[in-house]
Amino acid sequence: MAAWARAVRGLLLDVSGVLYDSGGDGGVPIAGSVEAVRRIKASGLKLRFCTNETQATREKFVKKLQGMGFDISVAEVTAPAPAACRILKERGLRPHLLVHDDLIPEFAEIDKANPNCVVIGDAAENFTYANLNEAFRVLIGMEKPVLLSLGRGRYYKETDGLKLDVGAYMKALEYACDVQAEVVGKPAKQFFESALAEMGVPPQQAIMIGDDIVNDVGGAQRCGMRALQVRTGKYRVDTAASLTCLVMDIKNTPGIKEKRMEAWKNCHLSPLLSRRTGSNYFMLLFFFSFPTLQLTSENNYPDFY
Amino acid sequence: MAAWARAVRGLLLDVSGVLYDSGGDGGVPIAGSVEAVRRIKASGLKLRFCTNETQATREKFVKKLQGMGFDISVAEVTAPAPAACRILKERGLRPHLLVHDDLIPEFAEIDKANPNCVVIGDAAENFTYANLNEAFRVLIGMEKPVLLSLGRGRYYKETDGLKLDVGAYMKALEYACDVQAEVVGKPAKQFFESALAEMGVPPQQAIMIGDDIVNDVGGAQRCGMRALQVRTGKYRVDTAASLTCLVMDIKNTPGIKEKRMEAWKNCHLSPLLSRRTGSNYFMLLFFFSFPTLQLTSENNYPDFY
Repeated sequence: MAAWARAVRGLLLDVSGVLYDSGGDGGVPIAGSVEAVRRIKASGLKLRFCTNETQATREKFVKKLQGMGFDISVAEVTAPAPAACRILKERGLRPHLLVHDDLIPEFAEIDKANPNCVVIGDAAENFTYANLNEAFRVLIGMEKPVLLSLGRGRYYKETDGLKLDVGAYMKALEYACDVQAEVVGKPAKQFFESALAEMGVPPQQAIMIGDDIVNDVGGAQRCGMRALQVRTGKYRVDTAASLTCLVMDIKNTPGIKEKRMEAWKNCHLSPLLSRRTGSNYFMLLFFFSFPTLQLTSENNYPDFY
Repeated sequence: MAAWARAVRGLLLDVSGVLYDSGGDGGVPIAGSVEAVRRIKASGLKLRFCTNETQATREKFVKKLQGMGFDISVAEVTAPAPAACRILKERGLRPHLLVHDDLIPEFAEIDKANPNCVVIGDAAENFTYANLNEAFRVLIGMEKPVLLSLGRGRYYKETDGLKLDVGAYMKALEYACDVQAEVVGKPAKQFFESALAEMGVPPQQAIMIGDDIVNDVGGAQRCGMRALQVRTGKYRVDTAASLTCLVMDIKNTPGIKEKRMEAWKNCHLSPLLSRRTGSNYFMLLFFFSFPTLQLTSENNYPDFY
C-alpha cells in the first residue's frame, strides 16, 4: 500500500446518493451501504458524515437513517444549517429563510425580524413562484444584498427521479440580483475544514467519499484531501463534469497502462472501476482489503489530458 | 440638432414598463404614454413595438393595450414567440414548453411530440417546482440539450411589485444542465434586426426606447442603434447595471461638463435627465421638440470612465 494510503486515519462520507436514495417516501438504503458503514467503524478509522442535506433537521435526518439500519448519531453529522447559524450569529445577520419547512427548527434561535440577508436551502415544494419572488424582493431591496446558500448542488436523485437542487435556485437569485451567493456546505473549503476539525484528522490523512464530482470530490481536493466518487446517486448523469475525478489503480498489472489510456479516452472517469465493480461499496471495501490497490489522482496521468 | 439625430427615421418602443405597468389586473398605462405614442405616430416617424412579452399571444396583448387607449395593431409588434416558432421550424426542433398558458396558442402549429428541446418563457404562475423539475428532466435527458429562452430579463415590475423574469429561471436550468441557452427576443441581435427589417429602417437611423438597461439599451447598442432608457418600469432598481446607458446632453450650457462629471461619478446613469425630468415622456417629447437637445453616447465621455 502506498505511504499516504497507510496514513489514512479518517473518512468523510456523503449521505444522500451514497448511503441512501432520498424520496417522498423517506428514501431507501443503497445495497451494501449499511454494512459498509459498519465495516468502516469496525476498522478503527474515524468517520464523519458530511452532508449538504437541508430538507430536515439533523435530528430528523439521523432518525430516518437509523430507521434504515445505519449506525449514525447526530454528533457525527456535519451539515450546512448549523454552519450557517454560526455565520449568521458572528456577522449579526437576520435571515429571510427560503428553506424546507422541516429545516426551520435549526434556525429557532436566530433573530429573523427585519431581514438583512436571504438564506436559501433545498426548499423542495417550498420553491414556489410566490416564495421565490418574495426572497428576490427581500434581496433586491437591500443596499448590499447578502445571499447565503446551503450548498450549490445542481440536482439530486430521488426515488421518483432527478430533482433540481438548491444550486439552480441560487443561480436564479444571483442572476436576478446581480449578486454572488456565499455557499455554506460542500464544496466550501471552510465546511470541509470544520468536518475535519470535528474528526480531529488533517486533510492529508482523510478521504472524502461522495457521488458528486464537483461538490464532494472537487471540494475535498481543493481542501487538500483525496476523494473517491461512488457510482450510485447522481453518478451516471454527472460524467460531463468529471475531469477532476480520482481513479483507482492497480500496480504492476500487465497491460494496465494501455487499458487505462483507452478507458480514459472513452469516458474520462475512473474507468477501471467501472469495468471491475458492479456495486458501490465493492470499491470501498476493496481499498481497505487489498494492499496491492492504490488510490492515485488524475495528476499522475498528464499524458492522458 | 446633431446630424445623426436629424437622420432618425424610426423608433423601436418597448412596451411593459414603458407604456404600461403590467399586473394581475391587466396593468395600468403609464401617465403620458398614450399621448406619446400618438405624437410619435403623428410626427411621421416609423414606429415598431419591440417587446419580450411572453405572457400572452400578440392578439391578446394588443387587445389589452388598445383597451387602455393605445394606437397599436398586431402587425406593429415584434415578439419572441413568433421568432421562436421560425427557429423551431427551421431546425426541426420539437419543444417541451415551459411558458404561460396564454402563450401556448402561438405554438399551435409546432410539433411538440417527443421533444428535442425546451422552450422557456415568462411562465409566471406556471413556474412551479413540479414544472421546473419536468423541464429540467427533459433537458438533462437529451444527448445535446437545447434550451431556447424567450428573453433573458432579470425581473420586471407589476402593479403589486417586482417579479422574477424568465432570465432567472433560464439561469437555473443552464446551471443544472451545464448548458447555454439560446436567447430569442431582446437583447439578441437577430431579434432587433428583425424588428428593424419589419420597419424598413437601418440601425443607424433608429432609436430603441426601453426601461431595461441590458436588454433594451445594451442590446440595441450592440446592434448599431442608439437607445434611450426611460425612468419608469424597472428603472429605479436597475442602476447597478447601467454602465452602457445613453445620456442626453445640452449643448453650450455653462458648467454642464462639471455637473455631468459629478453626476456620472455618483450614479453612472443618465444623470441630467434625472434632475430635469419628473415624468417618463417629458424626455421623449423634449427630444422631438427642442432642436438644441442632442443624444450622445457614453463613448463621448471617456474621461468619466
